[in-house]
Order: sequence, then C-alpha cells, then structure tokens
Amino acid sequence: MSSNHSSSTMPPATRILGPLKVPSKLLMGPGPSNMRESVRIVLGAPLLGHMHTEFINIMDDVKAGLQYLFQTNNELTFAVSGSGHAGMECAVMNLLEPGETVLVVQTGIWGQRVADLVDRLGGRVQTLNVEAGQAATLEMFSKAVEDCKPAVVFVCQGESSTGVAQPLEGFGDVCHKNGALLLVDSVASIGCVPLQMDALNIDCVYAATQKVLGAPPGLAMVSFSERAVQKMRTRKTRVPSFYFDAFELANYWGCSNEPRRYHHTAPISLVYALREALSEIANEGLEQCLLRHRQCADFLYSKLEEIGLKPY
Amino acid sequence: MSSNHSSSTMPPATRILGPLKVPSKLLMGPGPSNMRESVRIVLGAPLLGHMHTEFINIMDDVKAGLQYLFQTNNELTFAVSGSGHAGMECAVMNLLEPGETVLVVQTGIWGQRVADLVDRLGGRVQTLNVEAGQAATLEMFSKAVEDCKPAVVFVCQGESSTGVAQPLEGFGDVCHKNGALLLVDSVASIGCVPLQMDALNIDCVYAATQKVLGAPPGLAMVSFSERAVQKMRTRKTRVPSFYFDAFELANYWGCSNEPRRYHHTAPISLVYALREALSEIANEGLEQCLLRHRQCADFLYSKLEEIGLKPY
Repeated sequence: MSSNHSSSTMPPATRILGPLKVPSKLLMGPGPSNMRESVRIVLGAPLLGHMHTEFINIMDDVKAGLQYLFQTNNELTFAVSGSGHAGMECAVMNLLEPGETVLVVQTGIWGQRVADLVDRLGGRVQTLNVEAGQAATLEMFSKAVEDCKPAVVFVCQGESSTGVAQPLEGFGDVCHKNGALLLVDSVASIGCVPLQMDALNIDCVYAATQKVLGAPPGLAMVSFSERAVQKMRTRKTRVPSFYFDAFELANYWGCSNEPRRYHHTAPISLVYALREALSEIANEGLEQCLLRHRQCADFLYSKLEEIGLKPY
Repeated sequence: MSSNHSSSTMPPATRILGPLKVPSKLLMGPGPSNMRESVRIVLGAPLLGHMHTEFINIMDDVKAGLQYLFQTNNELTFAVSGSGHAGMECAVMNLLEPGETVLVVQTGIWGQRVADLVDRLGGRVQTLNVEAGQAATLEMFSKAVEDCKPAVVFVCQGESSTGVAQPLEGFGDVCHKNGALLLVDSVASIGCVPLQMDALNIDCVYAATQKVLGAPPGLAMVSFSERAVQKMRTRKTRVPSFYFDAFELANYWGCSNEPRRYHHTAPISLVYALREALSEIANEGLEQCLLRHRQCADFLYSKLEEIGLKPY
C-alpha cells in the first residue's frame, strides 16, 4: 500500500485506549452463570494449534465427557463453535430439508426461535400451543404428532422464558411411530434436570456451556442419534452452511472413520474450559450433580414461598 | 424422570476424569498465534450477563476498536461469535441471494471455501484462476469482473495456504463500476498488512482474532459498507441463518438506532480478550504495529535466504 494511505490513518476513539473494567457479579438470571474457579484458571492456559495432537486429545476427552453428560453412546457427539443458538442452527439445518414440516411444541421463546429458523430454511412450521407456564402432556403431544406427521419435532426441556420443565418420557417413541425425529433443546436444563438421551430415544440434543456447567459461553454441545444420521445421509439438498455441517464437524471431532480434516479453528481456550467443566461433573457424578441442583432449587422455592411468592 | 432411569446411569470414560494438560508451545504455523500476556490475563475476568450495561459498554469499545483496525466509519462493524470461517459465512450469507453470481479470485483454499459455501446457498460461482503463489493483477481482475458481472467479488488479502499477499488498490472501484460488491478476507493479514477499508472502497471485510491480534480464536470481526447495507436491505429472500443475520447482529451490537434486543449469548470472555487486544493495538498505533510486523517478516526472510531458502 502506498505511503499516501498510511499518512491518512484515522485515529482510534478514546474509549478503546483505557483499561478493561469488569465488576464481579453473582449471576442468577437467564444468562451465563458464574464460572467454576477451576474453569476460570484453565482459560488462561497456553494456546495450542487446532490440529495439534495434544489438542485433538483434549477434543477426544470432551467428546467422552459429552457422551456421559447426555447419557448417550452416539458417535456424532461434539461441540459446535458458537453459542447455544449455534447448536440450534446446527441441529435444525442438518435435520431439515426445504419443504419439510417441523412441529414446534410452543412453551416459550425457544420454540419461536426454531419456527423463525425453519421459515428461513424453507421448511413448514406447525405449532402445538401450550398454555403459558404449562408443559405439554404426552396425550396432547401424541395427538399433535399424529395429526401433522412432521419430519422433525422440537421440544425445549428447560424453557428459560417461562420456567417450564418439559417431561420427555414417551415423546421419542411417539415420534418414531410417526416417522419423525425428536429434537430437544436442553440449553438451560442439562446437568440439573435428568436427560438420558439414549433411554429416552431422543434423536438430537443441543445444549450450552454457560449455565449448569459453569463454563463461559461460546460453545454449544450437540449429539445426533443413528436414526438422525440416517436421515442426514439421505438428504437431497446440501446443508446451507459449511460451518454448521454436522458431517464436516463430526470429521474434525474424530466421530467418523476418516482421517481428520481441518474444518475451522476451534475456540481453543473455550474447549479447555468445557473439558474442565465436564471433568468436574464426571468426578462429582452426574446423579450427585442433579441431586445438588434439585436441592438448591427446592431450597430457593421454599424460601420464596416463605416470603409469600408462589412459583409455578 | 423416574428413579428407574437414574439407577441405570452410564459411567464416564476414564479419560475425562484426569486433569487437563496443556504444553507451552511457540505457535508460528497457519493457526492461532500465542496470546498476548495482557489478553491471557483478562480471559479469567468474572463473567457478566450478555445484556448487562457493563458488558454493552465493552461491546461498544470493541466496535470502536474494530473501526480503527479496519480504518472505517462503517456503522455495521461488529464481532460474530464464531471462528474466522463464521465471519465468511456471515459475509456471504448476507451479501448473496440464491441465483446470484460470485466471482472468486482463486489464490488458495479460502477461495475454494467460499465457492463451496456459495454452492450450498444456491448461488453461482465464477473463478479467476491465478498462478500458484501469485497475486491477481488489477488488469486480470478488471477483465474478469467485466466479463462475468458478478453480484459479489471475493478476494483473500492474506492467503495462508500459499503465502500470497494480494494488493487491493483499485479493486473496489472496478467492482463498483460493474455493479458488484467487494468482499475481502483479511483473517491472516489484518494488523500486519495495511487495510484501509474506506479508502479502498471495500464493501465487506471479515477477519479473526487469533493471529496478528494475539487473542484466542472464537470471534470473527466483520464490517459492512453502506453500499453493502443497501443491497442487504433490498433482499428478496431471508438470510438462511438467524445466528449470522447481519441486521440482527447489528442490533445486538448497537449499530442500529433501535433498542438492543437479545440475539445470542456472546462469548463474554472472548469479547474481553478482543477488547484487550484492540486496546493494545490502539495504544501502540496501527502504523507502528504494521511496521513491527513488516520488520519481523523482513528479518525472517533475510535469515531464510541466508540459509539458502527462497521465499516467493
């Protein structure tokens, strides 16, 4: 570039010259939770290359930790480099083809998000509307699936906008009887509400790192069942994103039998953090982790009732 | 969930139970660079909520720092929560509609990546093939743009697969004369090769945090010109992703005149890191930063020549 250009460099705004200031807060809202101290420490570990053997090993640890967290043997279990919503996009983009129908169990904003995405992808949306603050019953669910014969059914297990915890027993079987795949959002619930993916016959789960796991936001966790993989293998159209293409991601995460190819540069530090959070949960034991969260919730509810508030 | 389910919990794999081990390496390959020490330190700062005023302030700092780095006054300048490739997807998905043509200046793998993405999105690809290890001349470039009248032209400024640094003087004017938008990948070059976005009439630039900036990977930086915004405003089809929708991102990053809406949970720690890296560059001065990298490159090349290797 000519020195002409250099001599006319625009100056920086004053606001970027000063130091970063971050107050310490107790986070109990519908966003990130505070980090575990051990997770905070590993964030500062030295960077590795995204294809270095040492990093690949850490990815393999994460994969094993996710299979434990989701209680699944699914081979296609990995992290997506993005927020929880990136997990939703990865799931929906891979499971759905244009023209297909998605049944959305509408218990709050996450169903609306999925509906918006399905529309962008040229799919059709059918909605099972559930009364505000209520969960769908198996009966309502069965009727809706039988009526609209969707390709994919979306259910949010922990609806952060309404506080609804959606039971999932029997939902997978209803979907499979009707030729549909069951997609579950467990962003706000994973690790505090039980989710045994294989036992429940769920075809795809996505979750995020920044809530129960106590890791920073920036990674989504996803798992696809063999039934989901079969559908994805017979797609007639390409997934409209390379970044979210499940088979490309699966290759990079060592979930296929081919040699790993470079896909993208994983957020190395966040993968360290997720590995640490998953290791803590594995060492504590998933049942103990679930119990601890149940006890904390019960304590909170009892104190809220003492002061006259009634949670639903 | 019934206690039946809980009693059959699958145990964790042994590999996730042990501690994280990360060796310290000098990173000089085509992946992440080592972190700046100041950046490493801020990674461990306490998390904030993604809509907390203090965090919004930090996002505003980042936006100002990016405008300085890219040398632009573009209002739509922000970070995308994903790797450099996520920046590419955000750029291409927003600039392109199905059926439109993208001219790809093919100097290495990044052009191939864009071509793959355009195909997924239902666009058409024309290629300007450049001899391996060479940059495109303005003459070749002009002829190709005039011949194929594309909607978008893709050029990689720093081609990490071949080492080519592509000069960009005059490219923007050629594009605009022919009704095309100029899209530039500066993932490997930003901060070490000059890029004055406004002076060069570039319509969209994306870059990443993990190379010259010395921040960890996991964020892409993107800026759209007013001309690009005009094209995006008159789209006939919806962007096939909510996560990468530029106007939704612009709203969350405070680049529009509307109140900010929740879009996704930004990777809080990585935004701290990017803010710190941008602050260091602003305090050093962009020209000094560019000069320092030029001097380091010259030193490396001279030593390589001394031992008989000839860089091209």
